[in-house]
Amino acid sequence: MAFTRALEVKGKPVGEGKEPLVCAPLVGRDEAGVLGELDAIVAKQPDLLEWRVDFFSGIAETDRVVELAQEVRKSSAGIPIIFTRRSIREGGETIGISEEQVLEMYQAVARSGAVDFLDYELSCEPKHFAAAVELARETGTKLIASFHNFQKTPAAEEIVAKFVAMEKAGADVAKVAVMPQGLEDVLTVLQATLDGQKKISLPIISMSMGAYGSLSRLFGWVFGSSVSFAVGQKASAPGQVPIEDLRRVLDVLQRSLAGK
Amino acid sequence: MAFTRALEVKGKPVGEGKEPLVCAPLVGRDEAGVLGELDAIVAKQPDLLEWRVDFFSGIAETDRVVELAQEVRKSSAGIPIIFTRRSIREGGETIGISEEQVLEMYQAVARSGAVDFLDYELSCEPKHFAAAVELARETGTKLIASFHNFQKTPAAEEIVAKFVAMEKAGADVAKVAVMPQGLEDVLTVLQATLDGQKKISLPIISMSMGAYGSLSRLFGWVFGSSVSFAVGQKASAPGQVPIEDLRRVLDVLQRSLAGK
Repeated sequence: MAFTRALEVKGKPVGEGKEPLVCAPLVGRDEAGVLGELDAIVAKQPDLLEWRVDFFSGIAETDRVVELAQEVRKSSAGIPIIFTRRSIREGGETIGISEEQVLEMYQAVARSGAVDFLDYELSCEPKHFAAAVELARETGTKLIASFHNFQKTPAAEEIVAKFVAMEKAGADVAKVAVMPQGLEDVLTVLQATLDGQKKISLPIISMSMGAYGSLSRLFGWVFGSSVSFAVGQKASAPGQVPIEDLRRVLDVLQRSLAGK
Repeated sequence: MAFTRALEVKGKPVGEGKEPLVCAPLVGRDEAGVLGELDAIVAKQPDLLEWRVDFFSGIAETDRVVELAQEVRKSSAGIPIIFTRRSIREGGETIGISEEQVLEMYQAVARSGAVDFLDYELSCEPKHFAAAVELARETGTKLIASFHNFQKTPAAEEIVAKFVAMEKAGADVAKVAVMPQGLEDVLTVLQATLDGQKKISLPIISMSMGAYGSLSRLFGWVFGSSVSFAVGQKASAPGQVPIEDLRRVLDVLQRSLAGK
């Protein structure tokens, strides 16, 4: 079946076409934390890893960041890596560096070859976003444009407009994560994902967050979300389910959808 | 949590408030078939049984039907029983008896005390539907009004209108099962179920059928569908998943929705 579009690394589909791709976040505060988490997570064989560098206390020291990125690469058993600084504005941790410094860090990490995807927020200044696009092109990494709303769920048309804007801005993957205020909002995200697939040609990653939103983490891929973020060792956002639970549900869904 | 409304038998909630209730169909062609199926299914401890009498070759002989209903009751370990003649019009089997004879059979079975719920289709003639309502009142059984469309999914408003009409016609439970032509239609049924809960006070049973619709059999209860029909031994409609698979998914969902 093909409900989702493949994410690619160097021309090859991540996870060999499996859907959805399961991505586990790394949220350690220091080197030991990140690398310890990594070991536990790699054992669970996710399809992607996301290093949430905004959780890393050494974020202001680019050398430490690059070094740790390379350590993560070495110990990640070939699992593709997403490098992500989530801003406070969109639900991330407080960091003590400017946006220019964030971009310099992105450059150093991307150029080191230690990561495969860069996550950068669409809400950043256009000149900064353009620099991230250029960096991805230069380094052969893929740019995931992201948008988050931890308060509410915009209307389906607004979410689709975000996907369209992401494609237009030069992203390789379009990601939207929003908070539901009720169950209707979970349906809104699923509908927006279906609609978004008709409007853009990029792979889409979408999710509704929180307890209700966990539904979308389990079955949003059927509506076109290529990746589900699941807990390897520690959650990075509300509503993430443990990898083992996600796999249990996927197994049932895949048979049900195949009519078996 | 209370996503759904309880079905009641003699003033007590079926399944002691569990949600969703898991209902396994009996679709045997003769006495041995039905009773054999029953043994296999009771071992799986569903919350409800539905005897689809339109599959029973002896349907024209009311005595045989009543006798078998009583046998089923005896061997059903106290699991409440839904008695259902599905019409050809709504996806059932061909039967050789008139609607008047169907109602006579319903009367004999309901009066025998062998069943707890009667399923009767809203699309039947109003005088026949009224007779079913009266029969339920007289015998202390509960009337499930049902509507099926095996071709397509009506708009959400039309589905809600069916729920409203069912309540108005005197039903105790409102059930709609429709076929999706695409994934949007699965969302339509979930939305209609949410909306329906605001419009009527009856418990609702809703489902989207077929492979895509299996999603609603797994997650529809979160949107308000009180019962999920699952395969004990043999499916009675397309898209039903095995009881074991449904339970696996429910276990994950219940923990996810509780934020655990």
